[in-house]
Amino acid sequence: MSQKPQILSSEPLENSEAKWVALRRIRWQDEDGQERIWEAAERKTRGSGGVDAVAILALLQAEGQKTSTVIIEQYRPPLAQTCIEFPAGLIDGDETAEEAAIRELREETGYQAQEVVDSSPLMWCDPGMSTANMKVVTLRVPVSDMTSMPKQQLDPGEHIVRRVVELEKLYNELKAYEDRGFTVDARLANFAMGMALAKRMGL
Amino acid sequence: MSQKPQILSSEPLENSEAKWVALRRIRWQDEDGQERIWEAAERKTRGSGGVDAVAILALLQAEGQKTSTVIIEQYRPPLAQTCIEFPAGLIDGDETAEEAAIRELREETGYQAQEVVDSSPLMWCDPGMSTANMKVVTLRVPVSDMTSMPKQQLDPGEHIVRRVVELEKLYNELKAYEDRGFTVDARLANFAMGMALAKRMGL
Repeated sequence: MSQKPQILSSEPLENSEAKWVALRRIRWQDEDGQERIWEAAERKTRGSGGVDAVAILALLQAEGQKTSTVIIEQYRPPLAQTCIEFPAGLIDGDETAEEAAIRELREETGYQAQEVVDSSPLMWCDPGMSTANMKVVTLRVPVSDMTSMPKQQLDPGEHIVRRVVELEKLYNELKAYEDRGFTVDARLANFAMGMALAKRMGL
Repeated sequence: MSQKPQILSSEPLENSEAKWVALRRIRWQDEDGQERIWEAAERKTRGSGGVDAVAILALLQAEGQKTSTVIIEQYRPPLAQTCIEFPAGLIDGDETAEEAAIRELREETGYQAQEVVDSSPLMWCDPGMSTANMKVVTLRVPVSDMTSMPKQQLDPGEHIVRRVVELEKLYNELKAYEDRGFTVDARLANFAMGMALAKRMGL
């Protein structure tokens, strides 16, 4: 049933015909009083909360086992490759980031969060190029057994592969994924780099 | 001389008129063999190396002092606010990511790197929305005194404020920046979250 996704074609898209993304020309005045132009991309889906998306750092905790997290493998047409990411999704309507995080984690991975541990500052995904923003919500997820995963609640047409990884091995796992031809999300990779460096420095 | 930057106007930009960014319509076939459409933004500036940009994690090391890093404050027209980020920049022509990292660090902050400590996997900034990618290069920068900063080598019209922060305080500093009305870059924030969590978990 499942086959390897592939790109059929890719063509320039006029702004006026786009449904999900848009381009803007921004006229601004810089610190010297000089007028300048900047070009930016934006999502057209932002809800009333002003936050586009949420990513989920799930802390999977089982008695006597090392804290792990769940990451996902998902084909991304803009990259024409499968990308390794935090579970994540766009925020629906007037949902809060925390509500969206609990919902997306359940849908994409099946895990049910018990507690919101941290809600990050609002972060901007690529501030030189786009207006897209997000929060990372850290959720505590008690599990009885790290090796058995609950049932996903995917929409028809959604194909998401889950992987449970010990937090302290995350950066090495991402490097191994890259060696195997996968792509890696910048938010997840930076998080993993931070963990690895803190460990190396003995913070 | 320096005044607060401001947005003068913002208007839809047709793809055919854009110089720096573009929209694409991608036709793809999913895992079920179903044909689908995806819309994505891209940079038009990618060089022969296939990497758009580089961010720099500088490890500032001075005898007897805690390892620090240098972050920057820069007005970002897409956000209409000043954003806190790693030093970073687009990769020129056929430069390697490491060459660009050393150059950008010197230009934006004045610090001269002595050694490339790590070059991250290629990371994708916002894989659901854009084709933009980047690497994070970790550079070792010996300094004699954490409190005095070298002279920046900014281009005319560039306005970048530097800040040296102890690595272990980074996440709290970013939260404090947000409280003061600044915006925060997602790559930097995730890195800082990873460090903070590793420390809290005693990894």
